[in-house]
Amino acid sequence: MIGGGQLARMTHQSAIALGQCLRVLAASPSEPAAQVSADIVLGSHDDLDDLLAAADGAVTVTFDHEGVPLELLTAMEQRGVVVRPPSTALQYAQDKLLMRHRLAELGLPVPEFVDLSGDVAAAREALIAFGREQDWQIVLKAVRGGYDGRGVWLIDGDEQQALAVFDEQRRGDTVLMAEQKVPMARELSALIARSPHGQGAAWPVVESIQRNGQCAVVLAPAPDLDEQTAQRAQQMALRLADELGVVGNMAMELFETADGGLMVNELAMRPHNTGHWTMDGAVTSQFEQHLRAVLDYPLGDTTARTGAAVMANILGAPQAPAMSMDERLHHLMARMPEAKVHLYGKSERPDRKVGHINIIGLPGQSMDHVRERAERAAHWMSHGVWTDGWDPHEKETN
Amino acid sequence: MIGGGQLARMTHQSAIALGQCLRVLAASPSEPAAQVSADIVLGSHDDLDDLLAAADGAVTVTFDHEGVPLELLTAMEQRGVVVRPPSTALQYAQDKLLMRHRLAELGLPVPEFVDLSGDVAAAREALIAFGREQDWQIVLKAVRGGYDGRGVWLIDGDEQQALAVFDEQRRGDTVLMAEQKVPMARELSALIARSPHGQGAAWPVVESIQRNGQCAVVLAPAPDLDEQTAQRAQQMALRLADELGVVGNMAMELFETADGGLMVNELAMRPHNTGHWTMDGAVTSQFEQHLRAVLDYPLGDTTARTGAAVMANILGAPQAPAMSMDERLHHLMARMPEAKVHLYGKSERPDRKVGHINIIGLPGQSMDHVRERAERAAHWMSHGVWTDGWDPHEKETN
Repeated sequence: MIGGGQLARMTHQSAIALGQCLRVLAASPSEPAAQVSADIVLGSHDDLDDLLAAADGAVTVTFDHEGVPLELLTAMEQRGVVVRPPSTALQYAQDKLLMRHRLAELGLPVPEFVDLSGDVAAAREALIAFGREQDWQIVLKAVRGGYDGRGVWLIDGDEQQALAVFDEQRRGDTVLMAEQKVPMARELSALIARSPHGQGAAWPVVESIQRNGQCAVVLAPAPDLDEQTAQRAQQMALRLADELGVVGNMAMELFETADGGLMVNELAMRPHNTGHWTMDGAVTSQFEQHLRAVLDYPLGDTTARTGAAVMANILGAPQAPAMSMDERLHHLMARMPEAKVHLYGKSERPDRKVGHINIIGLPGQSMDHVRERAERAAHWMSHGVWTDGWDPHEKETN
Repeated sequence: MIGGGQLARMTHQSAIALGQCLRVLAASPSEPAAQVSADIVLGSHDDLDDLLAAADGAVTVTFDHEGVPLELLTAMEQRGVVVRPPSTALQYAQDKLLMRHRLAELGLPVPEFVDLSGDVAAAREALIAFGREQDWQIVLKAVRGGYDGRGVWLIDGDEQQALAVFDEQRRGDTVLMAEQKVPMARELSALIARSPHGQGAAWPVVESIQRNGQCAVVLAPAPDLDEQTAQRAQQMALRLADELGVVGNMAMELFETADGGLMVNELAMRPHNTGHWTMDGAVTSQFEQHLRAVLDYPLGDTTARTGAAVMANILGAPQAPAMSMDERLHHLMARMPEAKVHLYGKSERPDRKVGHINIIGLPGQSMDHVRERAERAAHWMSHGVWTDGWDPHEKETN
């Protein structure tokens, strides 16, 4: 696996069960996966020699992130390395503009968008025309490299702000696109896996709650989602993975509009934050499934073990709390013996994802109950403060 | 953790979730845990320098097996190493005779037994007297070092056999004891954990099915076990752990007699084969719990996620099957997408435990259904032959 982050760390846990050890290309021995795997190659994901060293003797190469430059992916493939997902698929997860064009071609619903990758003056004109058409209710996005809210600018009717972002980013050579701000009811995620032979498997569609531009909480399954919409989301993801030739996991993040419509927002071709609940809440976790897919094993059962599972991310505290993370963990365990804590071995920095908590409802426990526990646990771990928890009657403001 | 076997391997999986990496003292880099952990100390569990090297800088030292000589445990403790469970408790898991004497003292029900550790002539006399009293329906046991059926001799009424075993083992300096062959209905296991502060937690009592002297299948919870007996077993285990000052997991293996009585058979103070089902079937797995206990975290919830979970061991094939283990795994995954496979990275040898399978029933699935799947899966993985599976109407012959 290229990249030594938490996704590689958790993939290693699943590799152990399959009788294997995950080899990881990590930038340093202190990265989350490098701390725990016996087979680490130190190097950079944008150096071909390092990539080839990591691939040497491996059955297949897969990814913890989208950061490997496309030309290095194809260079590996030309040398006979089995890259999964292949570069021909992965490019769509790396490049939002390419993805939007391809999805539109395939007739999949995407927000209206405009390509701002061309000549600066023409792109600026295009932005202005698109902005006016949308009353400047638009989102500017870096085409490549954004994550967890970085590389995304919400423009709330302010033309000057939009142009300032455009000018600044273009000066920095960041290629941009703009899209309409979808009047959405909520965000969903359809996580699937696809094997080299085309076997597909979909987990239940989940609701993903974003805060400050990054995934904060996941509700599995998405509450009150009608069966038809859920199946449509799964079918869209499975069909797209097939069209693109994805091998491994693919998360399709979706907007659900007020009238129950769906639009594709983002794609990732790897284990994904919206699938962390599967580690404790589904028969097969997303990490095991990704390994099964890229290693060409038959896929595992994606059934949820429960009617209500909630994942909440643990973030680094904004200010150093009185108690260390380890002390907070002691208190959490004492108060919530059912909390499944997953820590990534990362040092705390404000808003940095350093772990997550799964609460998996036992029979008879409602989604509200489970969510309240998960939100409270994650808030405690993130801030060192006990709150009364999440109030199911308070409307989420995104 | 001292010892690099599968228990250390699976403990490492749980350590990762807790933000840690398990350091392992392993005899070779090819041992199950040494293959997968980033922190391996190579050395021997009966060499004090190696033990101290492994303990250096560790918060606590715990064990994958009972093999560390008592004098080395106490030597570590005298040097300030925090050994959990402490030598004062672990000695009872190492020495069956000491354990029997202590349990009898505490008024816990144990099979009738006789101490054959003294002078050879006197011990032989004692064996003859005990054997006659029991009509030679006895079991001879090595006091130390037996496991998986080794160091145990069933004497089925044959005085000459008993004396031949005695003479041969005593020549080899193996200290023996004898006990009555209990007319049991089945074997149960009460697995608990205890923290340094005395917090205790018990998983549901399970039925353990032995074949060829080793644990083959575990049914969780033990079918048709009456609530009172289950609670009595848990209370016995919790009380004993408290009396002995155990820190970490303790498995108390029990005989259930035809009239519903209980007798203590064996003790282990570590994660145990009869607790492997908890990895997929309980809120807190035995491996996480053992870590919580020895690291002095509050203990986790031991609730079963389901009404029917079955673990079945994968053994090395008696004869090399046509398909490799990896090919067998492919076929198993294709036929049983719900099977949770745990492989230990061990080479195949006849009857060697090389992995296990958990099948965790979904709501509405009966124990018979779940057991049939688990038995069939394990038989396939162990022999490379599909059977019609286990027949719930066929009486188990032990």
